[in-house]
Amino acid sequence: MSIAEAGEFGLIGRIVTRLGSGPATLIGPGDDAAVVRAADGRVVASTDVLVEGRHFRRDWCGPTDIGHRAAAANLADIAAMGATPTALLVALCVPLGLEASWAEGLADGLSAEAALVSASVVGGDMSSSPTLTIAVTALGDLGGAAPVRRDGARPGDIVALSGRIGYAAAGLTVLSRGFRTPKVLVEAYRRPAVRYAAGPEAAGLGATSMIDVSDGLLQDLGHVASASAVAIDIRREAFTVPSQMRDAASALGVDPYQWILAGGDDHPLAATFPPGVPLPPEWQPIGTVHDGTGVTVDGKPWTGGPGWDHFR
Amino acid sequence: MSIAEAGEFGLIGRIVTRLGSGPATLIGPGDDAAVVRAADGRVVASTDVLVEGRHFRRDWCGPTDIGHRAAAANLADIAAMGATPTALLVALCVPLGLEASWAEGLADGLSAEAALVSASVVGGDMSSSPTLTIAVTALGDLGGAAPVRRDGARPGDIVALSGRIGYAAAGLTVLSRGFRTPKVLVEAYRRPAVRYAAGPEAAGLGATSMIDVSDGLLQDLGHVASASAVAIDIRREAFTVPSQMRDAASALGVDPYQWILAGGDDHPLAATFPPGVPLPPEWQPIGTVHDGTGVTVDGKPWTGGPGWDHFR
Repeated sequence: MSIAEAGEFGLIGRIVTRLGSGPATLIGPGDDAAVVRAADGRVVASTDVLVEGRHFRRDWCGPTDIGHRAAAANLADIAAMGATPTALLVALCVPLGLEASWAEGLADGLSAEAALVSASVVGGDMSSSPTLTIAVTALGDLGGAAPVRRDGARPGDIVALSGRIGYAAAGLTVLSRGFRTPKVLVEAYRRPAVRYAAGPEAAGLGATSMIDVSDGLLQDLGHVASASAVAIDIRREAFTVPSQMRDAASALGVDPYQWILAGGDDHPLAATFPPGVPLPPEWQPIGTVHDGTGVTVDGKPWTGGPGWDHFR
Repeated sequence: MSIAEAGEFGLIGRIVTRLGSGPATLIGPGDDAAVVRAADGRVVASTDVLVEGRHFRRDWCGPTDIGHRAAAANLADIAAMGATPTALLVALCVPLGLEASWAEGLADGLSAEAALVSASVVGGDMSSSPTLTIAVTALGDLGGAAPVRRDGARPGDIVALSGRIGYAAAGLTVLSRGFRTPKVLVEAYRRPAVRYAAGPEAAGLGATSMIDVSDGLLQDLGHVASASAVAIDIRREAFTVPSQMRDAASALGVDPYQWILAGGDDHPLAATFPPGVPLPPEWQPIGTVHDGTGVTVDGKPWTGGPGWDHFR
């Protein structure tokens, strides 16, 4: 059954029955607006939009994968403030000929990814459109902590990373060359594995700044450096290239550090910590903060490709 | 300068400088997520999406008007819960050839409409897309009051309306027939005049249910009737057809009650109140709640056209 056949209210009904309800949901889908617990007295909010052909391709990812990716991109932004996600709202624009089951699969993915952090989809909107578009807004709770911004990095701080990096970019290259393996890379692109707990964890450890790496590590650290008016130097040897990534890079003729330093979509969190803070093993030191401007690798500018610009 | 020439970060920079900051904004645009005051311990949240060709046409409305409309559609949803809006987040998908000044005009409209209720744009996302699409999420604060839902209408309640109705639908018909006057109707379509204060006002008066009329009065009251498991009867004579609307209807061969009963875009609020509640003049009684199901006009089913389905 196509979306046109299901009709707006028919499709909304089919989708709403698939959404769970998290502990923060006071009023979920079906009214003019949702009501979500914000016990802290503040709410953290972020919006990300995915456009077909630009951020995803339906022949590379199933609807449930795309739901996971759309939710993860937003939930990671909440975590990067040091907060815990509570709710998602989703604006979905769909071509009328799309199968209703595709939208249901998307809802399953959004809902399942949100459930990883006990959040849920509390509302949304739907429209027909020639371009399949998914705009997600995530809400979160700081639990009494101060938000961790991008502008607090200080010279002498340690730069550390929590979560996989380079896998999704490698998977994207694999898919774009027409391959379907190595599976670990392709699956990493299709469904990011984000350490959401790293956000509040870093806040608790006294992180001076934090960012969700979504457009490439060097580019995103560039935002931290610029907001904090500092320089950041990354050590290339801090990154071990996993064997499957090394093999794929070699077969495809790509420098694997291009995936690691300039690739997006894995959503690890990068944070800066005062020197001497004992970091748990989930936070891997990758560099240091200095006086100056810009981001370097082993003291030199990176000569590989740039990060992601949504208008390029 | 086109959006492609401005670049993603260039355009974001140009837009952010145009956005004000409301009293609820703790962290505005520029970080991974915004932080907004939610003093009540709960946050009200709603998302609406506008797609070019479906919800707006660039030859009928300038970018600032479209910004006002996009904000109003969302702010009205917050008001319809009895809450006061605090913040907007905006996901904007734009064709690369669009003028950067168009996006700036849109930002001006969003910002100005939000400022009417002391709210502001606190964050967003931007992407290129073949289809110009604006997804807005509004947040709001209940100020200690219970949210007014759609499901509380009880037999015997009075149905009342606050705000203009039929004007925007009439303006849309005027534009779609190739005319540009009467100006009052066309301007009502271009820029809704929503009584946002009516939401908290109705909550204070003890409203048993409330809804933002965005898809047509009868259709939206149908949602109230269905959620509340009641019937609603509307009195046609409760609506005075303004002279300019009557003249336009006559000239265009349209029943003006079609605009009033089935037209969208004005965003008046419709609420039900217990009998005997003294209503201020801003709330006009238009009907009553009964046992049964469905919505009737003077006791009979409405035989005019239906309301708005975003998939039709």
